[in-house]
Amino acid sequence: MSTEGSRRSDDWLCEQQTEGIRYCLRVKDRLVHRRTAFQELELAETDDLGRVLTLDGKLMLSERDEPFYHEMLVHPALLTHPQPERVLVVGGGDGGTLREVLVHPSVTQAVLAEIDGEVIDACRAYMPAVHRGALDDPRVAIHVGPGETFLPDHPQAFDVILVDSTDPIGPGEALFAEGFFRSCMRALKPGGLIALQAGTPYLWPEELGSVVTRLARLLPHVHVYLGFVPLYPSGMWAYVLAGLRDPQGELTQVAGRYIERGLRTHYYTPELHRGALCLPRFVEELVAQALEQARR
Amino acid sequence: MSTEGSRRSDDWLCEQQTEGIRYCLRVKDRLVHRRTAFQELELAETDDLGRVLTLDGKLMLSERDEPFYHEMLVHPALLTHPQPERVLVVGGGDGGTLREVLVHPSVTQAVLAEIDGEVIDACRAYMPAVHRGALDDPRVAIHVGPGETFLPDHPQAFDVILVDSTDPIGPGEALFAEGFFRSCMRALKPGGLIALQAGTPYLWPEELGSVVTRLARLLPHVHVYLGFVPLYPSGMWAYVLAGLRDPQGELTQVAGRYIERGLRTHYYTPELHRGALCLPRFVEELVAQALEQARR
Repeated sequence: MSTEGSRRSDDWLCEQQTEGIRYCLRVKDRLVHRRTAFQELELAETDDLGRVLTLDGKLMLSERDEPFYHEMLVHPALLTHPQPERVLVVGGGDGGTLREVLVHPSVTQAVLAEIDGEVIDACRAYMPAVHRGALDDPRVAIHVGPGETFLPDHPQAFDVILVDSTDPIGPGEALFAEGFFRSCMRALKPGGLIALQAGTPYLWPEELGSVVTRLARLLPHVHVYLGFVPLYPSGMWAYVLAGLRDPQGELTQVAGRYIERGLRTHYYTPELHRGALCLPRFVEELVAQALEQARR
Repeated sequence: MSTEGSRRSDDWLCEQQTEGIRYCLRVKDRLVHRRTAFQELELAETDDLGRVLTLDGKLMLSERDEPFYHEMLVHPALLTHPQPERVLVVGGGDGGTLREVLVHPSVTQAVLAEIDGEVIDACRAYMPAVHRGALDDPRVAIHVGPGETFLPDHPQAFDVILVDSTDPIGPGEALFAEGFFRSCMRALKPGGLIALQAGTPYLWPEELGSVVTRLARLLPHVHVYLGFVPLYPSGMWAYVLAGLRDPQGELTQVAGRYIERGLRTHYYTPELHRGALCLPRFVEELVAQALEQARR
């Protein structure tokens, strides 16, 4: 039931971010609430952040800040690549990552490997402002199934792989395992790149550390950068860009490519891309330790 | 009453960040709760963030992330100045800002102008991990009273003024007015600098815009930078560095001064300082509009 007019609802949607931290949004309208084959899915209209999606009670995205997350997951990787043609998105059933991928004119095919088809259906129906048609773009192929079984059949197939996963609990767990990263590596074309979200180093430093260590055992170049995602615990979110190509060596090209490819962004800028690689001291130290761990 | 052992309390301290966003921390122990002459003051021990201070129900600091805030308020300004000797802190009764100021060896006097003496008393007693003795340092002079009445008696007295205020509602309101900024400008020595917190551009863009416009009408150089403060609404916090000296022109000196002055930081680094000046597109546009507004 929608609450119209001056009376405000007293319906709150709360996420337990840690055992001792709770974050709550006032809800105008509950749109979807169902148990899929994989997880509990909820879609709601909030007072302040537009529509939000939760999976297993964790807030995945809000219409208000989703560009912060999607632009920072996609553009550093795609602008680091001189000519991204085939791109794989693992997870990301809402279509926001696909939307940003398709902005790059060289992309001829974008594959979405999402384990839960009901996430795609619900977001297609209730979050058109997020996918903006990307889920139905002719360049997009949707594979409903786990990323880790899709990958082995596609050796050296992708220029960029974007892992747009939930946290490493529940169905997202397999997407943080070393075996999964090895499959990603084998599915990359020469010079290919992987980008993924890696949680918040403020609350879960071990998560970021272990992702960096695992990737650095497989790939020669591993870089961490940070961005604001107000919806997520602490608002301080880490991404990892790793691959067979040195992102540092491509940095001088990024600003030119941003213009050439006609990007228009709400959050990302090429200068911010460089800035996001400058880490707070404690994160810098955490990453250095994780890289050291990989060399042992 | 402290809850020891395996049983967890069900006592939560909640901040209403906006009408539709609520942020709650589980509390182990309520330490202080009183109404001062100016505001409602509360100190509590939380499960996840150590001790926290609230004023009028707004979370001011947690032991866990206060260095993020204090280091980013203090070091960009103090490292931009080649030889900061006299520093004024307006607000900041917890002593965390003072603590970071005193790390700079050239500082001979740091004045704290805090309107509410009870904030100082409570933090001195219950948050020693924040001030770490700074409130009782021989270089510190404490003036209990409003910053806006203290300033006019101190023309051209300070190398750096740091405004460590609450939000522009309640006792902090006067610290965002144009008259206050004019008093600050007159209290600066030649080449002096002002730094202040200016809220979150995600939830309150008008607040940042109006601060930038007001400062740009008075001072030739106004720069905005961002930092993570997980405790604050959205976690995305803006600071403004303004003054009679061009911060851009001093940027190449910052890394050398950081080493010369023997700084050791948990969050700040000279590289991060540059990175924090690279703004997300929507913030960059907001700041450009505010600067344009000042020129009209």
